[in-house]
Amino acid sequence: ILNKRIVVLPGDGIGPEVCGEAVRVLRAVADRFGHEFQFDYHLMGACAIEATGSPLPVLTLDACHQADAVLLGAIGDPKYDNDPTAPVRPEQGLLRLRKELGLYANIRPITAYDQLLEHSPLKAERIQGADILIFRELTGGVYFGEKGRFNDGNSAYDNCTYSREEILRIAHRAFQAAETRRHKLTLVDKANVLETSRLWRETVQSIAPEYPSVALDFLFVDNAAMQIILNPKQFDVILTENMFGDIISDEASVIAGSLGLLPSASVGDTAALFEPIHGSYPQAKGKGIANPIATILSAAMLLDHFGLTEEAGTVRDAVEHALDQQVVTPELNPATRYTTEQVGSFIAYAV
Amino acid sequence: ILNKRIVVLPGDGIGPEVCGEAVRVLRAVADRFGHEFQFDYHLMGACAIEATGSPLPVLTLDACHQADAVLLGAIGDPKYDNDPTAPVRPEQGLLRLRKELGLYANIRPITAYDQLLEHSPLKAERIQGADILIFRELTGGVYFGEKGRFNDGNSAYDNCTYSREEILRIAHRAFQAAETRRHKLTLVDKANVLETSRLWRETVQSIAPEYPSVALDFLFVDNAAMQIILNPKQFDVILTENMFGDIISDEASVIAGSLGLLPSASVGDTAALFEPIHGSYPQAKGKGIANPIATILSAAMLLDHFGLTEEAGTVRDAVEHALDQQVVTPELNPATRYTTEQVGSFIAYAV
Ligand SMILES: CC(C)[C@H](C(=O)O)[C@@H](O)C(=O)O
Ligand SMILES: CC(C)[C@H](C(=O)O)[C@@H](O)C(=O)O
Repeated sequence: ILNKRIVVLPGDGIGPEVCGEAVRVLRAVADRFGHEFQFDYHLMGACAIEATGSPLPVLTLDACHQADAVLLGAIGDPKYDNDPTAPVRPEQGLLRLRKELGLYANIRPITAYDQLLEHSPLKAERIQGADILIFRELTGGVYFGEKGRFNDGNSAYDNCTYSREEILRIAHRAFQAAETRRHKLTLVDKANVLETSRLWRETVQSIAPEYPSVALDFLFVDNAAMQIILNPKQFDVILTENMFGDIISDEASVIAGSLGLLPSASVGDTAALFEPIHGSYPQAKGKGIANPIATILSAAMLLDHFGLTEEAGTVRDAVEHALDQQVVTPELNPATRYTTEQVGSFIAYAV
Repeated sequence: ILNKRIVVLPGDGIGPEVCGEAVRVLRAVADRFGHEFQFDYHLMGACAIEATGSPLPVLTLDACHQADAVLLGAIGDPKYDNDPTAPVRPEQGLLRLRKELGLYANIRPITAYDQLLEHSPLKAERIQGADILIFRELTGGVYFGEKGRFNDGNSAYDNCTYSREEILRIAHRAFQAAETRRHKLTLVDKANVLETSRLWRETVQSIAPEYPSVALDFLFVDNAAMQIILNPKQFDVILTENMFGDIISDEASVIAGSLGLLPSASVGDTAALFEPIHGSYPQAKGKGIANPIATILSAAMLLDHFGLTEEAGTVRDAVEHALDQQVVTPELNPATRYTTEQVGSFIAYAV
């Protein structure tokens, strides 16, 4: 019987709706297995800017530091996107939180669901059985580099840096994951042009001998962006830097048939945060059409992180059951029209 | 009747084979329409390193400066890719050539060929009729920024910079292209995180009023990487910075059914270079299986650049004819087994 404190950051747009359903499922798990989960809600993102002026208030950051895990909905608002001069932005909160908690490894499993093959834009025979685990470095690279303007604001810069240590710590995790899977690790980089990519390649190569059972290979990011669509089944574990991981993992979501299915875990040496890959999808806010499954599967990854493997499996089975029964939101089946809450409740009930 | 000097840079891997066929087609065009094309062959890439120590010998650069157009095969060799410490690399030649010739706009048309719908990993109904024109900035950004090591080689950096002018000159071209097409321009950036992206957004927005018939919209690159696969028909002209363009355009190649079909033009205020999107594909070198169509269609773009619209159309019709007749290399039809040369000759004959 575990006693855990979970900080919930519902965030913006559809974040609160999908988080609500994931919490519902976690409560059902706690009831069924006799655990005690305490949920503390805090502000981050555009809602936090609105309320406090800061996208990541001190109170939120402190709570996250003290929590056993963080569950995040989504952040972001078009108000800020369309104003390139806004000095304070929702994304700064998320980026800072990742950095402050030391969440250097973002883990994104992408699988083709048999029930949803027809939803993918890809032909079924190309994706059936695809099962990719993406390790995206999350606290380095150009997203965290120095940035600014010069030349009276008429020029801008973003600097990308990586250190051997930053690469090593996530590379070891990726190799270890490959050892428990199909023993293949693909490093995605642009080593024919970028010096940081060459450091990645060199560093990852240097530890490969420690994992003799894992076959390591390399793909340039442009080629990778193509191969992921052409032949997703060739991949087992993919390791890549922050920005390439951002692009490649959203792209790979098409394999699953919907971005609304894809969870992620962001882990460091101590803290851990769980969030769907999808964004705040402001157009859908309050309409009850947001798919809660990505956040519910993120909650399953949270249970794994607590060592609750059986509980996590139960949640995944419940999700499969919902897919089997077509209890899904309209983007997956316009005919049935289940709401976010109905899908969440169905899954919680099946736990 | 035109008299033109074309520098041919066959390059590495399959480059010489595909260039050979494109030149064959250009000779056929010259014969049929009474033009004089003079072809001067020069070294660039790994072959140039081998022969001269430099990936872009002075002789080559001078010839390109004096040419009316440059036709390039492909450059690159795995020997350099797998050696992160190699101080001289084939890619440096190409990057420097682009910079020296001021080829700031790389234009990549991507269309779904009806004859090849079955070859695409995407479902036919998603791509049929897709017709995208990608404007990739080609001489700025992180590929050309300062790069290096510090901290005893244990850290690396790549700096990305953009100036308003660099953005303006390609943005005007992209807007103008949209005016002749379906009047939609999508800027792909990561303005929620990167300062250079915010400069792109701001700058492109600032000239939008000069093109009132064009609808401008914006997509974050992660979302764009997904949307290009989910719904390619939503796009008309895409404008983006160098690295995003590299990734997005290779990815979008899946729409065409093969990378071997996709041409590109790289243009500046004076010079112009034409090359297939695909790389040097060293595994296929000398086997006669390389698809020459991408280079032949690049030659068609070269003819357009000379103002030879009818001639360019004739080449495109000849390519369509080859596709209709299934006179294609094995990746498009393993049953027929035409060679690179047979496909090239068929197209040249049909001109
Ligand atoms: C919101 C944004 C800063 C974020 C990122 O790019 O890291 C998001 O796209 C993601 O992938 O988690
Ligand atoms: C070879 C490499 C430097 C080049 C690039 O990334 O620009 C290639 O991938 C391309 O897209 O033309």
